[in-house]
Amino acid sequence: MAKDEHISMSVVRRLPRYYRFLYDLKENGIVRISSRELSQRMGLTASQIRQDLNCFGGFGQQGYGYIVEQLYTEIGHILGVDVLTPTILLGAGNMGHAVANHMDFEQRGIRLISIFDNNPALIGQKIQDVEINPIEKLDEICTENKIEAAILCIPNEVASQVVERLIKLGVRGFWNFSHYDISYNHPGVLVENVHLGDSLMTLSYKLNENR
Amino acid sequence: MAKDEHISMSVVRRLPRYYRFLYDLKENGIVRISSRELSQRMGLTASQIRQDLNCFGGFGQQGYGYIVEQLYTEIGHILGVDVLTPTILLGAGNMGHAVANHMDFEQRGIRLISIFDNNPALIGQKIQDVEINPIEKLDEICTENKIEAAILCIPNEVASQVVERLIKLGVRGFWNFSHYDISYNHPGVLVENVHLGDSLMTLSYKLNENR
Repeated sequence: MAKDEHISMSVVRRLPRYYRFLYDLKENGIVRISSRELSQRMGLTASQIRQDLNCFGGFGQQGYGYIVEQLYTEIGHILGVDVLTPTILLGAGNMGHAVANHMDFEQRGIRLISIFDNNPALIGQKIQDVEINPIEKLDEICTENKIEAAILCIPNEVASQVVERLIKLGVRGFWNFSHYDISYNHPGVLVENVHLGDSLMTLSYKLNENR
Repeated sequence: MAKDEHISMSVVRRLPRYYRFLYDLKENGIVRISSRELSQRMGLTASQIRQDLNCFGGFGQQGYGYIVEQLYTEIGHILGVDVLTPTILLGAGNMGHAVANHMDFEQRGIRLISIFDNNPALIGQKIQDVEINPIEKLDEICTENKIEAAILCIPNEVASQVVERLIKLGVRGFWNFSHYDISYNHPGVLVENVHLGDSLMTLSYKLNENR
């Protein structure tokens, strides 16, 4: 498929959502769907959906709709789920545990190689078959496994120092649950921040507006 | 302050981010900041910042900048952090634990009243002083405490049924970590979804694009 060279990040950010909806449709045995039906399901306009999917060369046929399985596979391919990036997770507290337990990494283009923590009680334990290693092994494991991405579930106070060390070890992408501002301090690095508090405050706003 | 009647959700969604940055500035003893400095710090344009903050009647003075403490307080006020919404959390697994442990609810307009789980081993335990109750007590606790919001850290399979029950009990807002599509099934209800997988896939995309 011809891939548009300049896909805006706002389109890219909607793709995982398409992917999720298409997965559900697929699981429910739905073979094809019109842009109108998909738009109703997703709360977008049909023209928005057609526009989004046209960025990637277009999938649908006029008057026929999209083939669910095909569109699902193609979007997964665009998102890069076929190529598994060797990744580590730092911090096996509650959040690290929750993430390591629930994420279906391999379906999202991530191969989780190792988890790190400095709590001796956790070392040697496994979460979903991935071992928790002491932070002393960081350099060795990163180098040996050509680690490219890191998931940060560590406190703010240590994040700055850990990020610096990881970048030197070849890490070029971060999934960041800490509030340390990686992009500001390391402009070239790829970052996705998860700010759960921002989402909760948006809910507070809505609750308040509708009081 | 005069409050614009039609604040777009895209502006509202940026407010928690301003709030976070202003908090950090405040903690670092910074008293005032120009829109230019703030924009560099946040990776937005200065005119975007002026536009955003003008929606709420404007805070800054030409050539003087914003008073950090005042702007922080005002944005908090707009976001509704002064009014604590009585809230429950359902599901005390890893994710529920992580959320209950780390969220600073009262700084985000939420009062967490009770946690629910159906695992007998967890009942009676506390997370940050909030008790885990059996699901049998749901009706009683919701009614007594006029619960208005619920945090869903429960599996998809049970979410549909739980949401229905909660809406009947007066819950009008959900912070949803499950993949159950509340908005589609209950159009009038206020929802903020947390789809961690979407964020991880966006990182996968970036890693792949830069390979």
